[in-house]
Amino acid sequence: MRDVLPAEKEKRERVLGSIRSTYRRFGFTEIETPAVEPIERLRSNQGGENESMLFQIMKRGLEPGTPVNPAEAVDLALRYDLTVPLTRFYASHAAELPAVFRALQTGPVWRAERPQKGRYRQFTQVDIDIIGEPGTIAEMDLIVATLAAFEDLGLAEGITLRINDRRILLDLLAAVGIAPERSAETLIALDKLDKIGASGVAAEIEGRGLASGETVERLLASVTALQAQTGLDDAPLRDGTFTVDGTDVQVSLYDLPEIVATVAKLAPWADVAFDVSLVRGMGYYTGPIFEMTHPSSAGSVAGGGRYDSVVGKWLGRDVPACGFSIGFERIIDLVPDAPSTSRRVAVLYAEGTPAADVLTARQQHQADGSDVALVRAPRKLSGRFLDGLTAEGFTHVDSGAVSGDGPGTVRELRRG
Amino acid sequence: MRDVLPAEKEKRERVLGSIRSTYRRFGFTEIETPAVEPIERLRSNQGGENESMLFQIMKRGLEPGTPVNPAEAVDLALRYDLTVPLTRFYASHAAELPAVFRALQTGPVWRAERPQKGRYRQFTQVDIDIIGEPGTIAEMDLIVATLAAFEDLGLAEGITLRINDRRILLDLLAAVGIAPERSAETLIALDKLDKIGASGVAAEIEGRGLASGETVERLLASVTALQAQTGLDDAPLRDGTFTVDGTDVQVSLYDLPEIVATVAKLAPWADVAFDVSLVRGMGYYTGPIFEMTHPSSAGSVAGGGRYDSVVGKWLGRDVPACGFSIGFERIIDLVPDAPSTSRRVAVLYAEGTPAADVLTARQQHQADGSDVALVRAPRKLSGRFLDGLTAEGFTHVDSGAVSGDGPGTVRELRRG
Repeated sequence: MRDVLPAEKEKRERVLGSIRSTYRRFGFTEIETPAVEPIERLRSNQGGENESMLFQIMKRGLEPGTPVNPAEAVDLALRYDLTVPLTRFYASHAAELPAVFRALQTGPVWRAERPQKGRYRQFTQVDIDIIGEPGTIAEMDLIVATLAAFEDLGLAEGITLRINDRRILLDLLAAVGIAPERSAETLIALDKLDKIGASGVAAEIEGRGLASGETVERLLASVTALQAQTGLDDAPLRDGTFTVDGTDVQVSLYDLPEIVATVAKLAPWADVAFDVSLVRGMGYYTGPIFEMTHPSSAGSVAGGGRYDSVVGKWLGRDVPACGFSIGFERIIDLVPDAPSTSRRVAVLYAEGTPAADVLTARQQHQADGSDVALVRAPRKLSGRFLDGLTAEGFTHVDSGAVSGDGPGTVRELRRG
Repeated sequence: MRDVLPAEKEKRERVLGSIRSTYRRFGFTEIETPAVEPIERLRSNQGGENESMLFQIMKRGLEPGTPVNPAEAVDLALRYDLTVPLTRFYASHAAELPAVFRALQTGPVWRAERPQKGRYRQFTQVDIDIIGEPGTIAEMDLIVATLAAFEDLGLAEGITLRINDRRILLDLLAAVGIAPERSAETLIALDKLDKIGASGVAAEIEGRGLASGETVERLLASVTALQAQTGLDDAPLRDGTFTVDGTDVQVSLYDLPEIVATVAKLAPWADVAFDVSLVRGMGYYTGPIFEMTHPSSAGSVAGGGRYDSVVGKWLGRDVPACGFSIGFERIIDLVPDAPSTSRRVAVLYAEGTPAADVLTARQQHQADGSDVALVRAPRKLSGRFLDGLTAEGFTHVDSGAVSGDGPGTVRELRRG
């Protein structure tokens, strides 16, 4: 976990403000959930390996001198994502919410990962979700809004949307002859294609005894063929189907042709590709899944999909849902630093300066909407001190209280 | 802890945005610190009773089957305020910060209090602090900026600033004959004057053997006399001193006359009063202390003061500091609900509506900057459904996709 200093905090708030504003324009309404949830809810098997990285909170009021079993000593934990709290939120408040609820949620989440470069144990997530809509208009809504969020951040260039469907993956596995009960484990191996390559994936699938060499070969041939950018004009999306390598089995692309065509129409600047190698880690996805990548970021910058069986778990009835999450910590580095456009005045004072004069001058300088800070200065002003003000972001200075002329006159600072 | 629904979240963000914007205009720069700190730092005796209300986090990697002593099983805890993290932040980053650092920090804090009405175990604090400035210009800066924050929220009317100084209280206790080593405990009793009255305070001080009846009587006579609104034109602030009841000891008001006169000049709309009964709970204050009250709120709506010996504890050298904290959860209820001024359009769709048409209509309606949401509608639109849209905050509707005319035309919704 780490501190955020003023310059970076300003950038983070600017980026977050931009994303929030875009999502509001697309009709998503913001909610807030507590940082802490009961531990049994965070261990309900929807979080994959995140469930093993919980920061667990000890029950209050335990006797200091009486040893306890660690497993029995905790009742709460810090959330590892915003999806579990959202689904619980919806189950608690469904009666107060619209029939189809379009939610925006931003906030910190915590994972007790081993410290490593670029990974923090507290980090910010930005999620939109649509709960209650079974139709693919939900997927399109999420994708179009998130593309607009990147566009508004000046990150349109280079954005690629990769899309797949969990049902396509399951059909493909069935077509090559992998038993349904082995599909989950096979998909976990296939998800590593980017990292360990086709031979690595093949070795893992065979090594675990999930399928024979020939089957794996057929699977990887189909996946590799459909991994390259497969756009609107290429056969699979055009025909809505593809033939599994080495068989005559046709696998349907379900709703992907319609989703891709609509997204391409609404955001023609974006590259949109069908990619059958896209798996997405979480086991709870049930339909379309999607990711955005950017040439300057190694991993994906946003990801999501349909998860129709999660909300129902808390509510006792099936509720369709899908969501899209922006990797906030990853995109911060992609957004260029923008010099602030606001007028920032430093009103200098030194030891013994009459405070009332300085404060009155500040009040006058604020009249035009400027940000005006009081800044303690050395008795003798140096060029170096004034350059420091520029570096801190000040555009103007009122040094009258230190020079002896009395405060009240503002002059522009030299730009570095 | 609790969920925040869309209408309330919108209000909270509006209020928080307003306060942040005011503080930025006054030159405070925002930082962010992690929610979690090492437990020994949160138990270093600067948090009073808050230190007994920690949510403690269990060490990672404990053996599930091996009982542990609860005290040895934890290493982190959720912060109970923003001051401890700030002072630790300053000690870590002093070299990267201006000599006098004006910080703004907002965020959640956690206290494991017994559940009671109007108190939450996770709540938001909004703090400004000035670190490194020994002069009272710091107190004035904090007070003037915070008064402006209330003014910008439309809460100027009825705001009273009460101010005192820890040194005045200590001088007063010495003058009536209470031993220095008993002053801390006496002040804790005196702090309850609002709740249990003069007789209750007297009983507690005598009951604990801190002072004799006559001494207590003299103390309370002075306190009661100087508790009523004691403004700029009244003797104590005018003369800079007062005489302790039943003695001829003069107690100095230190810097209060200058602070009060300057604040009154800069924010003439505010009631500013010297109140010797103001104690403020935390033991770490060393100079001026202040609170704001509002007629519609039972407790104070903001509070702060000078704490010159806290930051040095982490840094190994003395660093002057003072801060002012707004009780965010209390003022939310005071700020009137403002009807949103933005144009909000609902583009209706129903099962089977072509998604591309609806999404294209939305994109057109966004061109003028409107917020435009897709809203699933029943096949047959009712007045009740349309009234529901108004209640949700929509000002306009495009019902073409449901009526069969095709989406694209927006009309205004009736106001409720």
